This record gives sequence, C-alpha cells and structure tokens, in this order.
Amino acid sequence: MSKNLHVAIVGATGAVGVEMIKTLEKRNFPVGKLTLLASARSVGKTLPFRGSDIPITELKEDSFAGVDVALFSAGGGISKQYAPHAVQAGAVVVDNSSAYRMDPDVPLVVPEINAADIKKSRGIIANPNCTTAITLMALFPLHQEFRVKRIFASSYQAVSGTGAQAIEELRAQVHAVTAGQPVEKKVYPHQIAFNVLPHVDSFLETGYTKEEMKMQNEGRRIMHHPTFKASVTCVRVPVYRAHSVAVNAEFERPVSLKDAREVLSQAPGLELVDDPAKAEYPLPLYVAEQDDCQVGRLRLDCALDNGLAFWVAGDQLLKGAALNAVQIAELI
Amino acid sequence: MSKNLHVAIVGATGAVGVEMIKTLEKRNFPVGKLTLLASARSVGKTLPFRGSDIPITELKEDSFAGVDVALFSAGGGISKQYAPHAVQAGAVVVDNSSAYRMDPDVPLVVPEINAADIKKSRGIIANPNCTTAITLMALFPLHQEFRVKRIFASSYQAVSGTGAQAIEELRAQVHAVTAGQPVEKKVYPHQIAFNVLPHVDSFLETGYTKEEMKMQNEGRRIMHHPTFKASVTCVRVPVYRAHSVAVNAEFERPVSLKDAREVLSQAPGLELVDDPAKAEYPLPLYVAEQDDCQVGRLRLDCALDNGLAFWVAGDQLLKGAALNAVQIAELI
Repeated sequence: MSKNLHVAIVGATGAVGVEMIKTLEKRNFPVGKLTLLASARSVGKTLPFRGSDIPITELKEDSFAGVDVALFSAGGGISKQYAPHAVQAGAVVVDNSSAYRMDPDVPLVVPEINAADIKKSRGIIANPNCTTAITLMALFPLHQEFRVKRIFASSYQAVSGTGAQAIEELRAQVHAVTAGQPVEKKVYPHQIAFNVLPHVDSFLETGYTKEEMKMQNEGRRIMHHPTFKASVTCVRVPVYRAHSVAVNAEFERPVSLKDAREVLSQAPGLELVDDPAKAEYPLPLYVAEQDDCQVGRLRLDCALDNGLAFWVAGDQLLKGAALNAVQIAELI
Repeated sequence: MSKNLHVAIVGATGAVGVEMIKTLEKRNFPVGKLTLLASARSVGKTLPFRGSDIPITELKEDSFAGVDVALFSAGGGISKQYAPHAVQAGAVVVDNSSAYRMDPDVPLVVPEINAADIKKSRGIIANPNCTTAITLMALFPLHQEFRVKRIFASSYQAVSGTGAQAIEELRAQVHAVTAGQPVEKKVYPHQIAFNVLPHVDSFLETGYTKEEMKMQNEGRRIMHHPTFKASVTCVRVPVYRAHSVAVNAEFERPVSLKDAREVLSQAPGLELVDDPAKAEYPLPLYVAEQDDCQVGRLRLDCALDNGLAFWVAGDQLLKGAALNAVQIAELI
C-alpha cells in the first residue's frame, strides 16, 4: 500500500479492539488517521497509539466518512447494523464477528490459506472464528499434503475469547476462592476458576453448540473443501488468553510423520514445537502474545487409517482475532 | 461379608490414601482393625478413622501379618515390591497403581462392568487408571447397547491425579501469579496455574503417553473387547480434583439419542446430566466429592456413522481411585 490510510476500529475498548490497535502499531500498518469507535459509555476514554492518546468517539451510522479500512470487533449485532454504512461510505470492512462468515458474498479469510479470496470481496471480508483459525493453521498444510477427510477435536479455550469482562471474572473468582469468599458469576453460567465448562456459544437443536459447528462450516469455506467434516467439543478453561486444540485427523492419502513434520515446519505463521523428551510442546501460557501458532504432540493416530493426532495452540486475541484481521487489511 | 476385617492401606498419607480411609468409613466397610502404612517419613503422624486417630506405621515386608485386605496406592514400584508379601501373608491386595494392570493373571476391575472377573484373582486385583475408569462408566453401557468399535477422546485431568504435592503446587502457583511473584515448579515441568499441559505420564516411542494408551489397553481388558481402539490426548488442567473427558465414539450398530439416553440414565454409578437449555452438563467442580460419575452433552456425532459424542466427568480420587478400590474390596 502506497498511501497512508484512515483506519477505524469498531469496538476499540474490547479485548480484541485493544489488540487491533497494538497490532497496527507493531506491524507498522500505514495508518494516516485512526478513529476509535465504541458505545457512548466509553466516550471520554482514550487509548494509546504511537505515543498519542486517541479519544474514543461514539459509534454512529455516519462515523465512517473518509474511512478507508474499518476493523469491526463489537459483536454480530453491531456488525450487521453498522458494516453496511461503512461500506456505503467507501470503507473496506474486516469483520471479526460471526455476522457475515457464512454469507456466500463475503470472503472468509485466513491469509496464509486463502488470501486470494479477498479479491471476491464486495466491501466486507470476514475474519474466522478463533478456534477454527488456530486449528486450520496446522490442519491446512497437512490437508494440502494428505487431503483431510474429517477431524475429531476438543478445545481448551481461554476466557479472552469471551472478552474483557470474562478475563476480569476469572481473576475475581480466583481471588474469591483463594480468600474463601463466595464466588460471583456474571459472564459464565458456572464458576470458571478451577473448573472447565463444556459450553462455548449457544446450543443448537442437534446438541452441538454454534461454536462447535464453526470448525466444519468455516473450515469448508476457508479450505475450499465442501465435504470436510469436523466433530468438535468446545470447552472453556481457566486460561487467560491462548486457545489449544487436540485434534484427531483422518486423511485420504497415507501419512508419514516425516512428511507431516516437514510440511508443518515449513508452514507460514506456524511453529513446530515437538520434542516430548524435553517436555517441549505447545502451551497456551507460552504462545500468549506470540504472532505464530504452534503445533506439536504429533503422532500417527492409533485408531485411524491415514490418521494423525496433534495439538495446536495460538493466541486467541492475535491469530484468533486481531492479527488475522490486520493481516487481511494489509492485503486489501 | 460376615466378619470384621483387618484392612491395611499402603500409601495412607497420599491424596488417594486419605480418600480410601474416608470411603471405608462412609460406606461402613466392616473394618475390625485398620493399619495405615507409609514411608518412614510419615511415622509419628496420625489420620482420623471413626473418631480415633490411627497412627501411621512404616511399610515393611512383614507389615501384613493378619491383614485380610490391603489397599495399595503408593506407586507402581511400591506395589511391585510389597504386594507379593501381602499376598504371601494371606491378604487380598487391591492395587491402585499401574504395576499389575496388564498382568494376565491379575483381574482389572470396575465393579459396575466386570465384577465377575474378581473370582479369577490369585490374590491381587488391579484398580484401573482414573481417566479410563471414568470414561468407561459411560462408554460401557453404550457398548452393551451399540457395540463400540473405537473412540477419540481428550481429557481435562485434575491435579489430584498427580497427588497431594500437585494440589499444593497449583495452590502455590495461583498465589504467586496473583501476587506478581515468580512461579515455582517442582511437580510439573511447566506452570499449571492458568495453563494446560498436554503431558500426563511419560512418553512412548509412538508419541503417545503411557496415560493415553491406558484407555485402549485397560479398556480392552475391562470390557472384554480385544479389538477396541482408543486414540486419546491426555491434558492436565488447573482443576483440583475431578477429571472430565470429551469422547467421540463409533459403534457397530445404529445409535439413537433416545436409546442412548435410556441406557445411560439406567446405568449404575452414573448420572445423566444433560439439559443444555438450562446450562446443565457435567462439571468437574460439581462432581468433585460425588461417588457417581456424570455424563452429558450427548449428541449424534456429525462426523461418524453410528457415532455419539459425549462428555463425562467423575471424581478422580473417588471413582477414579479410592471408591473403585473399596467397591472391589466389598465384592471380595
């Protein structure tokens, strides 16, 4: 990109919004002007960007005049309501919510996988679900080599995926349990401190949650693989900001560990961390605040023909959200 | 049993040992005399049983004179060394370690599944791995109805499975993180507070851990199902005492949710907790200190023919260890 751009962030005060600002700065994105939008509640606050304090302004339908790129991360309802106004004002929207992910007119993009889809955009580009994006960073290179048929996966999702309030809820509950005080629940239906909740997003008639089906639904669009199947159990764990996923994957072609390792070690945005003898494998605590996802615990699956089991982890706020959105913006 | 028995507990001061004493008392086991054995380090301590303080005595080869039932939970090495002496002295040994689990001469028993195997004992009966026992409490009733072929499973294992020191390590690390102090690691190779570790037990050449292969190896013996396959990822999570497991199971026969629910709601030692609309599903925090395991999140698997996905949780120290051992002793 040759000129400096006017960038707007919708939901600037949220956990992802704050990371978007940091990511724009860290990656030296050509920002000419930065507009930070949020609800009226946040007006009066400021957030730092390149040494200045940028004031929060209230999100309105006419907030997008002159904006080149609008990064949305304020929930599906806000995206549905305001993204069309941003597009009408001439902005390209990168939407981190689930609002447009299954819209056939909206590309759903992980830049390392399907950057070319961005060209099909009519103004909005969707950023995928965090658990899906992180899993596909390892699965897609293997798919290219061995052709994936289906996966079985279980997630270990950090509270950052729910937002800033959930991070605070975990902190407060840990304090209460440690002090022997009663635990308060506002964000989650059950205590998350010292517990795990097999409940992320709302439940469908089938018994799966919406979150669980995103792996298959979004995975098919991103990988251009309409018969891909994914049976997932999504679980919230008392970790602050990175997600992990245990995957059993079945492929069409015979797999070898040697080839799998080679493919994964060369994959963009991914680090192979796999030396069990030295207790080296991806850990959410260490991958937090890292741009690259990590994959490890690689083994031939003992219950599948042409199967691989592996463990992938990534920073939910970065590759799972803000980083991927800014990477898309860089390609526009 | 008609007479009062002389019961010995080996490893009485450990996390499981303490639960064994409580379980004997709670279930009104016919204890005439209770001998608590541990290493020399614990001599001088006492533990409460039926209102008395029972002194710890040092474990020696001649500790088992007159003992009817010896419950071992002090690690595989101790079992290998001392169980034969207990048997020679005339005791029946129920061993909670992995030392004898794959010995064809030693029955491996979950009383609700294969109580009849106890009759084949030559003096030692093995108590299964905790994650395996908890998973089979839900899987076996389904197997009887639909014939299981294979499962893919990921565990969420509490620190109690590692022992009393690990419980203390989680507590100390949470305190250190909260206070902004450096975190000390003694029991686990990485911080467990606010983290998850895909590493339980030691690694095999195949890349699986020993713990992960117990599901298949022990599952085959307990269910009398020599072709059962299980591909498992075992993960330690910052939960104090109950394990959870996400399971994708493939069966030979067609499955229906209605039949599965009926089978599970009637299964002994198991509670069906499955009302997602009310946010009701098994949670490690609530199943802790409960005798019964819980199963929920039941759904037809979207990536398997004749498949079911479910979530099972159980108290690792009870059904996963002490309770199962005492249940075996009750049947002797």
